[in-house]
Amino acid sequence: MNFKMIKYILGWIVLFEAAFLCVPLITAAVYHERAAFSVMITMGICLALGGLGIWGKPKNRRLFARDGFIIVALGWILLSILGALPFVFSKSIPNFVDALFESASGFTTTGASVLPNVEILPKSILMWRSFSHWIGGMGVLVFVMAILPLCGAHNMHIMRAESPGPSVSKLVPKVRSTAMILYGIYIVLTLLEFILLACGDMTVFEAANTAFATAGTGGFGIKNDSMASFSAFTQIVVTVFMLLFSINFNVYYLLLCFKVKEAFNLEFKVFFVVVFLAIGIITVNVVSAFANAGLALRHVAFTVASIVSTTGFATVDFNLWPQLSRVLLVALMFMGACAGSTGGGMKVSRFVILFKGAKAELKRLVHPNQVKKIMMDGRPVEHETVRSVNVYVFCYTLIFLVSLLLISLDGFDFATNFTSIAATINNIGPGLNAVGPTGNYAGFSVLSKLVMTFDMIAGRLEIFPMLLLLVPSTWRK
Amino acid sequence: MNFKMIKYILGWIVLFEAAFLCVPLITAAVYHERAAFSVMITMGICLALGGLGIWGKPKNRRLFARDGFIIVALGWILLSILGALPFVFSKSIPNFVDALFESASGFTTTGASVLPNVEILPKSILMWRSFSHWIGGMGVLVFVMAILPLCGAHNMHIMRAESPGPSVSKLVPKVRSTAMILYGIYIVLTLLEFILLACGDMTVFEAANTAFATAGTGGFGIKNDSMASFSAFTQIVVTVFMLLFSINFNVYYLLLCFKVKEAFNLEFKVFFVVVFLAIGIITVNVVSAFANAGLALRHVAFTVASIVSTTGFATVDFNLWPQLSRVLLVALMFMGACAGSTGGGMKVSRFVILFKGAKAELKRLVHPNQVKKIMMDGRPVEHETVRSVNVYVFCYTLIFLVSLLLISLDGFDFATNFTSIAATINNIGPGLNAVGPTGNYAGFSVLSKLVMTFDMIAGRLEIFPMLLLLVPSTWRK
Repeated sequence: MNFKMIKYILGWIVLFEAAFLCVPLITAAVYHERAAFSVMITMGICLALGGLGIWGKPKNRRLFARDGFIIVALGWILLSILGALPFVFSKSIPNFVDALFESASGFTTTGASVLPNVEILPKSILMWRSFSHWIGGMGVLVFVMAILPLCGAHNMHIMRAESPGPSVSKLVPKVRSTAMILYGIYIVLTLLEFILLACGDMTVFEAANTAFATAGTGGFGIKNDSMASFSAFTQIVVTVFMLLFSINFNVYYLLLCFKVKEAFNLEFKVFFVVVFLAIGIITVNVVSAFANAGLALRHVAFTVASIVSTTGFATVDFNLWPQLSRVLLVALMFMGACAGSTGGGMKVSRFVILFKGAKAELKRLVHPNQVKKIMMDGRPVEHETVRSVNVYVFCYTLIFLVSLLLISLDGFDFATNFTSIAATINNIGPGLNAVGPTGNYAGFSVLSKLVMTFDMIAGRLEIFPMLLLLVPSTWRK
Repeated sequence: MNFKMIKYILGWIVLFEAAFLCVPLITAAVYHERAAFSVMITMGICLALGGLGIWGKPKNRRLFARDGFIIVALGWILLSILGALPFVFSKSIPNFVDALFESASGFTTTGASVLPNVEILPKSILMWRSFSHWIGGMGVLVFVMAILPLCGAHNMHIMRAESPGPSVSKLVPKVRSTAMILYGIYIVLTLLEFILLACGDMTVFEAANTAFATAGTGGFGIKNDSMASFSAFTQIVVTVFMLLFSINFNVYYLLLCFKVKEAFNLEFKVFFVVVFLAIGIITVNVVSAFANAGLALRHVAFTVASIVSTTGFATVDFNLWPQLSRVLLVALMFMGACAGSTGGGMKVSRFVILFKGAKAELKRLVHPNQVKKIMMDGRPVEHETVRSVNVYVFCYTLIFLVSLLLISLDGFDFATNFTSIAATINNIGPGLNAVGPTGNYAGFSVLSKLVMTFDMIAGRLEIFPMLLLLVPSTWRK
């Protein structure tokens, strides 16, 4: 373990957080808010800690796989802890554990909140919440990829540790160029949404917040009723962009290179078939509760896009829908978005691989002598990938189960408990019953909030980095 | 596909069912019940159908893997359909779908019931319910193994199709001898429990029913309050035997050969560690609701043994326990009993393999150059076994999810729906809320009952045979 190098890179991450804090600082300046001081104190702490971290550039810059995993896991924990300070200092969320939950929920692009009333918060604090989604959205992947070359480290291991899903293919040979292309797509799409929203019934402040929260598939709202009070136009724009941010960013790059056939790969097709099927089934299931079919379709499309992209915005209280729709939404929570997007969940490509693996196994039972490799988009899926996906699913289930048991101590009902974990580990935000679109996570105990904070980070980092933190063999020589 | 041979073997299975019907027939004769006629008509139908089936011994007796799977799946469906007839004819359960649910619940050793009041049923019908557990308990595995040699067929494929879990090792070279040894252990243990129960406060009829239902880890009760009104002695005997029937039967055989060290393998140890941990945690969680700690311990031990063995008897309404205990019980439902026992669930050995696979994968992430095979009880676990377990878990989850969506149409709450599927696919019986120990499955729609009938059979046959029935490639040349 190269502890000096880990300290050095974590130092850079904290310095970057200080830079990110300029966004809420400017907001506070524009609106003459006292919260500016809270942001400035936090910036000072970040600069001091970051400075300490990068003090003395290490001579041995060699990083191994486990160093990469540890950096990613600790980096995200640090971001969340320091990101919680503005909430505490501004007294927006005086309790530190609550603030940590909210901050982790921001950086992991979850959007689960402990706040019953967000409209009383200073605008700068609201902006910090939304902007943390945007930082988290692109993932430590690109974030670390962009700063690591500065440190001159071997960064492929870190990319492996945080690749969002099994199928992130390198677009261009150099890691840093990949990061720049992905960032470019991310910024352009965010800007596009911002402009469209600002043309509608949103103020510039609202449009910026919403664009940040959509781009990161986060879902922190700026109104207590999330997106319900905005116009149909705004809701439709958000629906479209939630889906756009759920797609593997490679698709956009390939489209820019006019490789249309390659762009629309199997994962893309499966994703949209599932989305349209879900919209169809739920619309039929809930249509009677709306004034007309068009209205039902709009709200259902928004809800499905919000859940499947793991954003978590709401225009209606889907907790009141019939059981079939509720269960279907919970199922979509687990599937999540496409690999290589800013969305969370277990990722469509993992399910495609699991499904193909199951089909091959059933065929093998019937025709034991035919052994075929699993193919995806014309290329064979390596045995290691299939195994890794299976282990991922098991570790995921294990964390889910232990979390469920721990938060059950609080005594909430089964649906609340089950969907609380589903909504945090998959980085969605709202669940059902007490944590439904009109509820929040304030009622949970300190232990439960810490468990779900762990789950949010574990989910966002695709399980393994956080698990490795807990495995003794990681820390052995 | 050797359709003639499939028909021939299914014919024999139906003839055996006719023979099994002697047990309720004798009961009806002893208690002078009119239900005797219903049993006799069913026997007649079985004899006629079975006779047709075995008419003309096929010349080509070669069976392939898929023939084996189809025989097992269709065999169990046939048993359930014909086994439902006594319920319908005796008007104990006039509706055929309800009767089919009850019959499948019996043969799959689930114990989920649609009957709100079992005490008004004729004794012969009660006996048929309990006895179907006993037939199902040992599994079509041994059942088919015992009759297949009569047909002179190659029976290894059928054994593969129905082996209860990944680690059934052949005790002796000849399949038929294995069957005889397993049957011997089964019968001796059943007799032992019967004698002990008859020495307590149970009548001979009650002791026989309870012994049959425990041996098969079924759980159909003969009282409306299941086991609550019996003495502490009886409850303790049932607790011990539920656990005894959850252990791999190989353990008993190895003990008989004085191979003590081999007998207590890893699965055995993990099973008892989990059972004792669960009893400990739940006792602490619920102790305040009981008069004293001893009483709490007795009822918790009974409940944990009942759930983990997938029997489903109850002495108290665990649906009223705190959330932690409820969730822990639901988790135990999925683990289930040991492979090679009469219990259901996903089997302890599967979890051990998954856990070891995950540990190996995490180690591989940290030390990419160290590749080690997974070991279990000193022997390497084949790659094919690990893959098969993973696919099993995925198919299981898929069936679970689709079933959950379908029964959600009925509008029950989430906990009811979730635990209904958990309790049927794992062959347990009672779940939570509406299907808790004091509830039943009568309120579900016809569709839901058929879905859960499918799940019970799929769970009992370890998923694959029932899935193969639905895959088109099974039926292709």
